Amino acid sequence: MEMIKVSIAGPRGRMGKEAVTLVEETNHFELVSVIDHKQEASAGVPVFASLEECFAHELPDVLIDLTTPEVGYTHTKTALEHGVRSVVGTTGFTAEQLEELKTLAEDKGIGCIIAPNFAIGAVLMMKFSQMASKYFPDIEILELHHDQKLDAPSGTAVKTAEMIREVRESKEQGHPDEKETLQGARGAEMDGIHIHSVRLPGLVAHQQVMLGGEGELLTIRHDSFHRKSFMSGVKVCVETVMELKTLVYGLENILE
Amino acid sequence: MEMIKVSIAGPRGRMGKEAVTLVEETNHFELVSVIDHKQEASAGVPVFASLEECFAHELPDVLIDLTTPEVGYTHTKTALEHGVRSVVGTTGFTAEQLEELKTLAEDKGIGCIIAPNFAIGAVLMMKFSQMASKYFPDIEILELHHDQKLDAPSGTAVKTAEMIREVRESKEQGHPDEKETLQGARGAEMDGIHIHSVRLPGLVAHQQVMLGGEGELLTIRHDSFHRKSFMSGVKVCVETVMELKTLVYGLENILE
Amino acid sequence: MEMIKVSIAGPRGRMGKEAVTLVEETNHFELVSVIDHKQEASAGVPVFASLEECFAHELPDVLIDLTTPEVGYTHTKTALEHGVRSVVGTTGFTAEQLEELKTLAEDKGIGCIIAPNFAIGAVLMMKFSQMASKYFPDIEILELHHDQKLDAPSGTAVKTAEMIREVRESKEQGHPDEKETLQGARGAEMDGIHIHSVRLPGLVAHQQVMLGGEGELLTIRHDSFHRKSFMSGVKVCVETVMELKTLVYGLENILE
Amino acid sequence: MEMIKVSIAGPRGRMGKEAVTLVEETNHFELVSVIDHKQEASAGVPVFASLEECFAHELPDVLIDLTTPEVGYTHTKTALEHGVRSVVGTTGFTAEQLEELKTLAEDKGIGCIIAPNFAIGAVLMMKFSQMASKYFPDIEILELHHDQKLDAPSGTAVKTAEMIREVRESKEQGHPDEKETLQGARGAEMDGIHIHSVRLPGLVAHQQVMLGGEGELLTIRHDSFHRKSFMSGVKVCVETVMELKTLVYGLENILE
Repeated sequence: MEMIKVSIAGPRGRMGKEAVTLVEETNHFELVSVIDHKQEASAGVPVFASLEECFAHELPDVLIDLTTPEVGYTHTKTALEHGVRSVVGTTGFTAEQLEELKTLAEDKGIGCIIAPNFAIGAVLMMKFSQMASKYFPDIEILELHHDQKLDAPSGTAVKTAEMIREVRESKEQGHPDEKETLQGARGAEMDGIHIHSVRLPGLVAHQQVMLGGEGELLTIRHDSFHRKSFMSGVKVCVETVMELKTLVYGLENILE
Repeated sequence: MEMIKVSIAGPRGRMGKEAVTLVEETNHFELVSVIDHKQEASAGVPVFASLEECFAHELPDVLIDLTTPEVGYTHTKTALEHGVRSVVGTTGFTAEQLEELKTLAEDKGIGCIIAPNFAIGAVLMMKFSQMASKYFPDIEILELHHDQKLDAPSGTAVKTAEMIREVRESKEQGHPDEKETLQGARGAEMDGIHIHSVRLPGLVAHQQVMLGGEGELLTIRHDSFHRKSFMSGVKVCVETVMELKTLVYGLENILE
Repeated sequence: MEMIKVSIAGPRGRMGKEAVTLVEETNHFELVSVIDHKQEASAGVPVFASLEECFAHELPDVLIDLTTPEVGYTHTKTALEHGVRSVVGTTGFTAEQLEELKTLAEDKGIGCIIAPNFAIGAVLMMKFSQMASKYFPDIEILELHHDQKLDAPSGTAVKTAEMIREVRESKEQGHPDEKETLQGARGAEMDGIHIHSVRLPGLVAHQQVMLGGEGELLTIRHDSFHRKSFMSGVKVCVETVMELKTLVYGLENILE
Repeated sequence: MEMIKVSIAGPRGRMGKEAVTLVEETNHFELVSVIDHKQEASAGVPVFASLEECFAHELPDVLIDLTTPEVGYTHTKTALEHGVRSVVGTTGFTAEQLEELKTLAEDKGIGCIIAPNFAIGAVLMMKFSQMASKYFPDIEILELHHDQKLDAPSGTAVKTAEMIREVRESKEQGHPDEKETLQGARGAEMDGIHIHSVRLPGLVAHQQVMLGGEGELLTIRHDSFHRKSFMSGVKVCVETVMELKTLVYGLENILE
């Protein structure tokens, strides 16, 4: 494979550190610079305080941006204007920003990927659940996390239900006359899909989507045991963005 | 093994039919009569309209009673008075009735087993969960049933939480500041134990108890695929009641 | 939806009986005749000893054939020649037969579906496993069946490995120096994919495909609790065959 | 609870480090010294090159020994002679050594616990499997580990089968005429119990014991996500050894 030159913005964050390791350990990736306001030596490559300085020095093939939504937007725009493809791991872009960046990417004829979730396994779980919901409209989601997590249900569970909602009509599940003798037993509900959140010490991040049909059950489960699981998604994005000529939002839209 | 002579009261009900099959198919069990107000030929053995008539004809070693609470109480009392051991599958006895029957069993020096649940697997699941809760006090229960079930949570889930409560102090689980962004996500709660009820077509009757600790998870799961699963418990009861000299309530108290 | 007139060949077999029930219970399906060499009254519709007699009486929209490979081939050919679409649940057709039937279907411009497995859930499990194997090439298959099953691994497990093999290069999994201290521990192997077969009383038919990546695991599981699970696939096939203008082999090729 | 004074031998090993953290973080434990041939400052407590020096300085209530079998034996013997209770995490003691240490413990009237496995969850899984095997003699074990593990099956799987063997008669499982069309599909076998070993990247250390009966399945599963899971067992041992007046081998013999 041809070598891909990569710059990383946000190299000291949790995701950023893993991304530096990923690029260093991938044979056909080369880390050429990092963008960081602190001038600490990072991975033996030049550190630039701004993207402009970085690009003045050397244009990478791909910018991996793992900063904040505000910075991420400016970075992505600047990169596209310089003809540099971006893989962006931040969320919170507005619809207008996405539209503007998409137009820019298409004008330049280069790729850009913005992904709220880089865990390929989690994204496949959501995608497969969506596909299967056409045939199995009765669906419940169980998500399980460590007991330090504050909110329930998880963002992934909600996103899964939203993706299913795109293709499945709203449906009242369970028996029409069912009743809870203890409140909450049947979980939360989104368009008829029940969502259950387990919180226990020892757990990391897990979700299983259960789809029931006459005499059968289809279960799609993802276990994330370690943050490293995000890195395989970053790798696929860096490789894929080289082939794209537009902006794609969401890993689910580049996985075949 | 020595042959055990068995009479069955309630041989035409769902459980009763399975019990007739069980006794016929077990080498060291012999079906000697059934008690049934309908005089239909049943399994080629004498049919008696009342227990008194039955006992006047021949005393069995064990009476299996699968009738109703009212009839079950009278049958059990009559059987004990005749020196016949009973295995009773009905629920709903009062504490006074149980006390009276226990005294009677001990006076006669013979066994009697009253079991609300004959599924050995389910009873072991509850017993093991109770045992493990001493070491893993953070517990959530997931029960899954077909979508024709009306009430949530299931009786077995509630019974499991009650058995754990006997040995575990009440404990607030999860993060003290956790909050539901969708109501019901964290399920129902009994003394801090969260209970989640899944209802889907295709499912039969399943429960898993999850116990979390630092860096680990212990899961105890029971799947009941078919009503036949109750019969192994009836078999164990018939064998065990021959050795007892008192009344035992609940299968969990005879399983070692 | 428009009413679809259906004839069923092989209405007294295990699958055939379920198919009769399915057609009767589906609002937009109408059972118009059955083909059966025995002249027993079946579902209140005319019974014909041969397909020719049946078609002479009335042409259905779709023929569901649940007979044997030999009869199935002749039936399908005859149906296509009469302009009748077929859904065929038998296996064992030769490549030449399939080619011939395909040409015939395309000449007539009508659909024909031949499906070795009608369980949509099982087919989706295989399809999703194949799709995911592109991103997670390390795969093990666990299949679990009742202990009356004679052969191991199951046909579905082998078919799953074959489908993965179509898109994944052969790969030696596990540690290069791994060794079995008890023979067979690591299961059977097909192109590097390990397959494990569990046989226990109580089980019905279950399979889970596990795909491992750095820090994560994706599991796709199908539980078949009852033969009825096949019928949802037959229903989809009857609906889909009305839209096709060619022959399709395998349910995986019509599920989107 | 009363404060328990603890010394740790082997404080720099993987287990040793976790044990130091455990003792420091447990309110009613006090770390009073460590035994280590390197004089590095460890946890702010005195470091002694030998157990004799350590004991000459101050006798702890409990010695936690996480060294090697040879050193562990000598340490345990010395500790018992000084009237100090031991919790020993090393394996490989001979039967003679165990017998000698047991006699010594009983002569002194103090406790000693030798545990090859401190993971309470894993030990409960084994114990419950053994208990349940009396009622469900058809058993298969599935163990799943990361793909860097060299041997299959795991020591825990073998130990589980051995514990079941103590209470269950040997039994040929599966259909008498079953055959493998791919060698190894039915896994390894110990006294009729089939054992299957999955090795995948992403996995940590997991085992599930499946017990099948007519119409039902009982599954007991343990997931170890992190080495920390061993520490809850060490804590229970330190507390329990204070109450014992003999030597106990194996955590399963102190868990109730």
